[in-house]
Amino acid sequence: MSSLPHFRRMVIIGVGLIGGSLALVCREKGIVSEVVGVGRSEKNLQDAIALKAIDRYTFKAEDAVKGADIIILAAPVRSLIRLAREIAPHLKAGAIVTDVGSVKGPLTEIEDILPQGTYFVAGHPIAGKEKSGVTAAFSQLFQNSKCILTPTANTNRDAVNTVQSMWEAAGAKVLLMDPEAHDRIFAAVSHLPHVIAYALVNTLLELENESDGIISYAAGGFRDFTRIAASHPEMWRDICLMNKHNILEMLERYERSIAKIKLLIRSDDAVGLYNEFERARQVREKL
Amino acid sequence: MSSLPHFRRMVIIGVGLIGGSLALVCREKGIVSEVVGVGRSEKNLQDAIALKAIDRYTFKAEDAVKGADIIILAAPVRSLIRLAREIAPHLKAGAIVTDVGSVKGPLTEIEDILPQGTYFVAGHPIAGKEKSGVTAAFSQLFQNSKCILTPTANTNRDAVNTVQSMWEAAGAKVLLMDPEAHDRIFAAVSHLPHVIAYALVNTLLELENESDGIISYAAGGFRDFTRIAASHPEMWRDICLMNKHNILEMLERYERSIAKIKLLIRSDDAVGLYNEFERARQVREKL
Repeated sequence: MSSLPHFRRMVIIGVGLIGGSLALVCREKGIVSEVVGVGRSEKNLQDAIALKAIDRYTFKAEDAVKGADIIILAAPVRSLIRLAREIAPHLKAGAIVTDVGSVKGPLTEIEDILPQGTYFVAGHPIAGKEKSGVTAAFSQLFQNSKCILTPTANTNRDAVNTVQSMWEAAGAKVLLMDPEAHDRIFAAVSHLPHVIAYALVNTLLELENESDGIISYAAGGFRDFTRIAASHPEMWRDICLMNKHNILEMLERYERSIAKIKLLIRSDDAVGLYNEFERARQVREKL
Repeated sequence: MSSLPHFRRMVIIGVGLIGGSLALVCREKGIVSEVVGVGRSEKNLQDAIALKAIDRYTFKAEDAVKGADIIILAAPVRSLIRLAREIAPHLKAGAIVTDVGSVKGPLTEIEDILPQGTYFVAGHPIAGKEKSGVTAAFSQLFQNSKCILTPTANTNRDAVNTVQSMWEAAGAKVLLMDPEAHDRIFAAVSHLPHVIAYALVNTLLELENESDGIISYAAGGFRDFTRIAASHPEMWRDICLMNKHNILEMLERYERSIAKIKLLIRSDDAVGLYNEFERARQVREKL
């Protein structure tokens, strides 16, 4: 646990659930004097002011970052390298740029984009809920959650400590991890489950189009999938494209699991099916 | 809504979550005088007595059904035709046999197995929770749930009305449906989601075996899947084997959905991915 940091000016680029909640908790803990929001939707930015997540806003990231101590990139992950290029010439010396994206490997490029004397620390808070947008934000979102930082050999250690202490102040447990390891692990435990939930819901949508009313019989199991598949489509599009190779590998492994169960059903293998299902049941006890 | 039925003796074969909860609510509503449990585990049957779900128990279904007004087949669905054969010679005239299985088409065979003057009504209460066994049973389980009955052209209408009024007394809304339509719909909205949850959990188990610790990073999405995959493996084995052709059809449709998303990712089709995810998101609003 590092000591509490203090930022005179924090800029949040993308004031949604994550960016908004981080702003709220940083203000609540008194670790920031002024928060500036940057976004595309004026309505959302006005909501952010009304909710006291930010003090003011602008549509131009380059204006906002001038003089800022810390910049949080909280926009969809595929836009972050472009945003880094945009703000790079306007950062003050000593400024820290960090992000909250769900994919980390490709973002190491930002280290080369930012000027000497400014610092990039890649981060991924493991938090979220069904609803998105700043109106869903709340200061307790990160309480008892994990936040993963993925420094490289080139990352400034003091900057890592500062970002770590910010997340700890927000209530998160911080873990350090290699960016490539991060992307493979989260392809498996997070990106794959989301993709297959989307695929299931779309399978049922096609059936619904053929024979109206099927979805009205949906019980417990399917409802959980629709909740997962109700996540922000822009965010998941970006994750799929940025973590393409890991997600494709996981989908292929998963297709083999499906093929195995199909074969067991097709060959009436009662013992094999029982074992396959019993094995899965035990995982819950491990969690 | 039919008038309240009354049974002097009800036999529950398979006193688990569903059978136990039905016994509890029928006693609570005063529509049954004596409940006899039949099962394989003495411990479970003793628990059922302690919980006042049943008055007494036996291991022999044929003994229990003598003189009974209504027999509830609540054992795993693949055993029900065998159970029907076992009890058929011992039923009294006018006895009603019903079941709570998740697959209905193959059970129409029971109509031919039972003797003249006794009645079979196939049923499927849409209720359940993660835990199984009678210790998880409670009388409110069916409150505001749906219960589907699947009479055929040969099914006795008075027997259907009696079983319907029993489920309505238990708090369920009763729907009548063709058995084949039932099996196709539930292959899609219930059996498919369970099978793919098992497949996902087993995919991650194999990754965990290769690189220890992956599962410890599991967040929201994956946890929902482990809950679905924690369902009773014997029950799901039976459902897969009894509803084989519908489930294989749904798995093939689902594989095409997965293949479509893989292609969109592989070809970096941002617009296509966004549309695919956005379409799935809207289903939740329909539910």
